[in-house]
Amino acid sequence: MNDCIFCAIVAGTAPASVVLDEPDVLAFMDIRPFTSGHLLVVPKRHASGLAQLDPDDGAAVFAAGQRIATALRASSLPIDGVNLFLADGVAAGQEVFHVHLHVVPRTGGDGFGVRARPQSPNRTVLEGTADAIRSALTVPEG
Amino acid sequence: MNDCIFCAIVAGTAPASVVLDEPDVLAFMDIRPFTSGHLLVVPKRHASGLAQLDPDDGAAVFAAGQRIATALRASSLPIDGVNLFLADGVAAGQEVFHVHLHVVPRTGGDGFGVRARPQSPNRTVLEGTADAIRSALTVPEG
Repeated sequence: MNDCIFCAIVAGTAPASVVLDEPDVLAFMDIRPFTSGHLLVVPKRHASGLAQLDPDDGAAVFAAGQRIATALRASSLPIDGVNLFLADGVAAGQEVFHVHLHVVPRTGGDGFGVRARPQSPNRTVLEGTADAIRSALTVPEG
Repeated sequence: MNDCIFCAIVAGTAPASVVLDEPDVLAFMDIRPFTSGHLLVVPKRHASGLAQLDPDDGAAVFAAGQRIATALRASSLPIDGVNLFLADGVAAGQEVFHVHLHVVPRTGGDGFGVRARPQSPNRTVLEGTADAIRSALTVPEG
């Protein structure tokens, strides 16, 4: 064990309002919700980031997020959409270093959204970036 | 076939800068990138939203996003973090109705982020919300 708050929640030694408890994942309410119903899905096995996350645990986390999002939208709760959001790394806004998928229920005018300045690069620029990413993907890991 | 732009990209009848082509998923550069290297991962089989998405396709989409994020962070590209983002429904900001996972490379000061007014509900409020979500999750589907 470590001093990870999400590991403590998984272990039952820290309080949480749990909505889903499966063999490999736990989903519980975020205590600083972006919108009402904002919850987190975490793998039970500790992984600080995506690079450390077992891909099977990643698939289980996403599956739980998809299932919750679908159930929320089909329910009678006032939810018109859902955002899934994950931050990997300090530069991405990650604050707790145990992988967590945010599930953010949405309604019109709830004030949540992404802040961005989209660019419009031409195809040559896009191809150059794609080339660099393809190279990164083909470098053997380890 | 339909008039879905992502189906056209998958079919090869619309242009795209592809970085990953797997049996069930395709990843390509977003033409309106939030940051340099912003790309989209889509299931090849059309699904307008999470409710229509085959869970196996969802797992494959997330696995590709995880793999790309990990490769980008391990590469020599100037990438210090990654956000994964998915919008399900108009209220969530979805604009193309073919499921797509945004993979957004991050560096300090790139201007991307979430816009939110986090609340601090007490445990009683959190438990009430969790209760409603648990009920939504246990209602039989269909």
